[in-house]
Amino acid sequence: MSGVATQPHLGLKAPPPLPEGGLRVMALGGLGEIGRNMAVLEFDGQLLVIDCGVLFPEAEQPGIDLILPDFGVIEHRLDDITAVVLTHGHEDHIGAIPYLLRLREDIPLVGSRFTLALVKAKLREHRIDPVLVEVAAGDDHLAGPFHCEFISVNHSIPDALAVAVHTPAGLLVHTGDFKMDQLPLDGVLTDLGAFARLGVSGIDLLLSDSTNAEVPGFVTPERSIGPVLDDVFARATQRLIVSSFASHVHRIQQVLDCAHKHDRKVALVGRSMVRNMGVARDLGLLHMAPGLMVSLDDAAKMPPEQVVLVSTGSQGEPLSALGRMARGDHHQVTIEPGDTVVLASSLVPGNETAVYKVINGLSRLGATVVHKETAKVHVSGHAPAGELRTLLNVAKPRYLMPVHGEWRHLRAHAKLAEETGMPADRVLLAEDGVVIDLVDGKATIVGSVPIGNVYVDGLNVGDVGEESLQARRILGDEGFVALTVVVEPSTRTIVRPVHLSTKGFSDDPSAFDEVLRLVEDSLRRALQDENVDAHRMSQIIRRTVGKWVSDKHRRRPMIIPTVLEV
Amino acid sequence: MSGVATQPHLGLKAPPPLPEGGLRVMALGGLGEIGRNMAVLEFDGQLLVIDCGVLFPEAEQPGIDLILPDFGVIEHRLDDITAVVLTHGHEDHIGAIPYLLRLREDIPLVGSRFTLALVKAKLREHRIDPVLVEVAAGDDHLAGPFHCEFISVNHSIPDALAVAVHTPAGLLVHTGDFKMDQLPLDGVLTDLGAFARLGVSGIDLLLSDSTNAEVPGFVTPERSIGPVLDDVFARATQRLIVSSFASHVHRIQQVLDCAHKHDRKVALVGRSMVRNMGVARDLGLLHMAPGLMVSLDDAAKMPPEQVVLVSTGSQGEPLSALGRMARGDHHQVTIEPGDTVVLASSLVPGNETAVYKVINGLSRLGATVVHKETAKVHVSGHAPAGELRTLLNVAKPRYLMPVHGEWRHLRAHAKLAEETGMPADRVLLAEDGVVIDLVDGKATIVGSVPIGNVYVDGLNVGDVGEESLQARRILGDEGFVALTVVVEPSTRTIVRPVHLSTKGFSDDPSAFDEVLRLVEDSLRRALQDENVDAHRMSQIIRRTVGKWVSDKHRRRPMIIPTVLEV
Repeated sequence: MSGVATQPHLGLKAPPPLPEGGLRVMALGGLGEIGRNMAVLEFDGQLLVIDCGVLFPEAEQPGIDLILPDFGVIEHRLDDITAVVLTHGHEDHIGAIPYLLRLREDIPLVGSRFTLALVKAKLREHRIDPVLVEVAAGDDHLAGPFHCEFISVNHSIPDALAVAVHTPAGLLVHTGDFKMDQLPLDGVLTDLGAFARLGVSGIDLLLSDSTNAEVPGFVTPERSIGPVLDDVFARATQRLIVSSFASHVHRIQQVLDCAHKHDRKVALVGRSMVRNMGVARDLGLLHMAPGLMVSLDDAAKMPPEQVVLVSTGSQGEPLSALGRMARGDHHQVTIEPGDTVVLASSLVPGNETAVYKVINGLSRLGATVVHKETAKVHVSGHAPAGELRTLLNVAKPRYLMPVHGEWRHLRAHAKLAEETGMPADRVLLAEDGVVIDLVDGKATIVGSVPIGNVYVDGLNVGDVGEESLQARRILGDEGFVALTVVVEPSTRTIVRPVHLSTKGFSDDPSAFDEVLRLVEDSLRRALQDENVDAHRMSQIIRRTVGKWVSDKHRRRPMIIPTVLEV
Repeated sequence: MSGVATQPHLGLKAPPPLPEGGLRVMALGGLGEIGRNMAVLEFDGQLLVIDCGVLFPEAEQPGIDLILPDFGVIEHRLDDITAVVLTHGHEDHIGAIPYLLRLREDIPLVGSRFTLALVKAKLREHRIDPVLVEVAAGDDHLAGPFHCEFISVNHSIPDALAVAVHTPAGLLVHTGDFKMDQLPLDGVLTDLGAFARLGVSGIDLLLSDSTNAEVPGFVTPERSIGPVLDDVFARATQRLIVSSFASHVHRIQQVLDCAHKHDRKVALVGRSMVRNMGVARDLGLLHMAPGLMVSLDDAAKMPPEQVVLVSTGSQGEPLSALGRMARGDHHQVTIEPGDTVVLASSLVPGNETAVYKVINGLSRLGATVVHKETAKVHVSGHAPAGELRTLLNVAKPRYLMPVHGEWRHLRAHAKLAEETGMPADRVLLAEDGVVIDLVDGKATIVGSVPIGNVYVDGLNVGDVGEESLQARRILGDEGFVALTVVVEPSTRTIVRPVHLSTKGFSDDPSAFDEVLRLVEDSLRRALQDENVDAHRMSQIIRRTVGKWVSDKHRRRPMIIPTVLEV
């Protein structure tokens, strides 16, 4: 399942063999992009994987459902994998697990209770029965030569962990995704004491979350959203709809508390919302006051001022419940003037157009829409500059490898490290596939292996590649013009009129009448030469049509000539 | 040139005839969208047009170059148009002028000096010689029954005007795009005195810019960007590249001043940048210190620390100079580690992915990229909530029609008006095509006419419609599978093997071997029935392939069956 080759890392060659006693680190995803996080550690011939997530496609990857890390580098070494450590339950950290386990189902998955619960639910849908190893902050786990120690971190999902990996080659610490909310709803702080202790013992290489490295300062506490919601609830006279990520238990908890306070019943809308909140409740991570929850069916029948709908769709997904409401075609919920909709969520880069489309649709129908740009209904889950500096000063790593970020984030993180006094050559700026070896306490970039984008499209994994995507881009922008000619080779005559089929070029059916005549004329002329063959005729069709659309329309549709000999 | 019908305004019917002595107002674009601004006023059988801009397409309009206002409503009344008033020179206000003048070339264009200079340059490219009427703030212009009075406003382009239209039916004021920078670089303030004076005389209907209605407070002065640039220039040790809009004369002026202060030469990069700044210089709106400017050729030869490149491409346009630099394929400029790139511009919604792609590309090559999210290198050109309230309190209109905005902006503007004490029924929330009549001093929504999207694609205007776009979306997401069968009708035999042509579905050429057999089998079976015709055979192909791709791949490519009888 090797993917489409992306731009190779600036001037790097294939890496040399890993020296005896050295630790090798490589990312198969997550560097140079936000998503499909997957780090691979190698020591003494054995591998430890940290996270295995998916990346969501951009506009230039049309029709793609998901992008996986490129397993090509490890798929011939699946038996060397001692475990996959999962730092938390977000899709960009666990989403690709089903595809990895298809290659080897019994790879042990090590993670916290909530993380594993989400993984398990996901794998059930893929009919995979995984080997799960539950750990908690403070626990140790030995995976081959990798002695893992888990540290609690605070993030936008409960039960998130950082992992310290002790090997004879040295100590590597991976923060996972984290921030330093000092008033976390569940009281679980990022354990700076543990990072400090490890720092004293000597962290050789720190892999740290770069997502918000460009953002100055410190995070606003998640708690601060409660009063804002309370104010919105107090002013809402009719139906309330709050949309957020289906994994953001603490955000949803505050919505439930608000609803309880304002005597509104709550209905969960959206498959993942219902599933995840059920899991969270069962694990005691989400508290639902008795009688608070109702079904959407019941909520739809209640007076609007007595309900809150908690739904997915905060990223503008057109097929989500909220997306349908915004278009006025949800089968149970009709937006009425005076309704209030809260998007209590981030605006993931790339989703802006879709999200504003939903906001505009709801506004058009008369709803008041509250979103992060008009009220403080969202705080980020990732540490901004101030907290990243703090971690560096506490953990005092010898080397830093910025992870979890696009190039702008990785470079900004590097700058922060240099500000805290780290020599520039101690910051290892890498992208997917870049190989870093830690040998004798010294970490260096030793080379790079090609990492591709592995595309999931429907049930297909890896079948759709750059060639198909390029065709989709042309077809999607310009449409196609297909011309089919049937010729009788012996007599070299065109048996029937040239058949034209076109889509996406023009709504005017007569658009091609002119060029059809041109094509038939040039073919007839060509057929007078007895050496002309099907290939040559195809060239003539392509050239004639291409010139015509370019001169007359300044367009370049895909031109598909077919010459059939009968 | 009538366009693709969009969603009709909630429950409105066609408008009744305009009563004698009444003023009719309708937008052909710009309401419910940011772009293609065009308002049409009607009095006593004559029309006045205010602005005529283009809208830039979104992802669901693939391959489209521009979207025009729908002239369908007025194209049978072109001779009734007394003039087109242009408030300022931005593309979303003047971009569609060439397409309107194609319908009637001698429509008088009324606007300020700089606005008309930009329009003239644009029309030259379309080989159109317009009738231009230059006006300045304080001037009057009589266009048929429309007595226009022009008011200076402050915006992100020089020489912007608001227009007051006096008619026997009452006074209408259109702000155009404005903000209230109290320290404008060119000293030209938004003339609150004029708005106050008109307010005292009684403004019946105010059309006011809604773009930033969701943004609290007041604008930061354009001037405040100077010191930020100065700081960036002071820290830059190598090449400096500053990107901004090619019409933002004041922004560019500050870059030139900074360059002069730091002894750097300036080269303008990008066709529109060179053209517009030339126009601005000729009109005395842009001041270039002697010897400051050099050609890009010369700049490319100079030591990097002695030059500043001022370029287009701030919105991530892949073909722009900056876009090429970010991909490392600009023929004259190669980004080196240590270079500094400043995006001194807004981030237009919808362009985020493209802009971040450029920022990441530059970062990857080692450049330090300064952009609005990391430094105060941009201020908006549109009045936020505080200034919109101020205008309403100064102008005291009887009725407000929020314009220039998506639904979220229009509704937010309506809220602001109600805060300032306007009764809700005095705020007319309309979208494109909604008709408002001002009769006996009373403004009401009287109906709506369908307004479509008129798409420009290459040289084609209006040929590409919803049908083609829908095809493009399917083709762009899923690709196509075309199967061609040649049959001999009399013998009802398939003359040659079924021919398959597919693009965008899979990079694996053998993907369809299986289904080809299925298709041939089902066709042979079908042909045993003598009633089967080409149409029926096409259905069979479509059904067989459709079921197969859906069951086996969970995909839905476009299926194109062709049955040729010979």
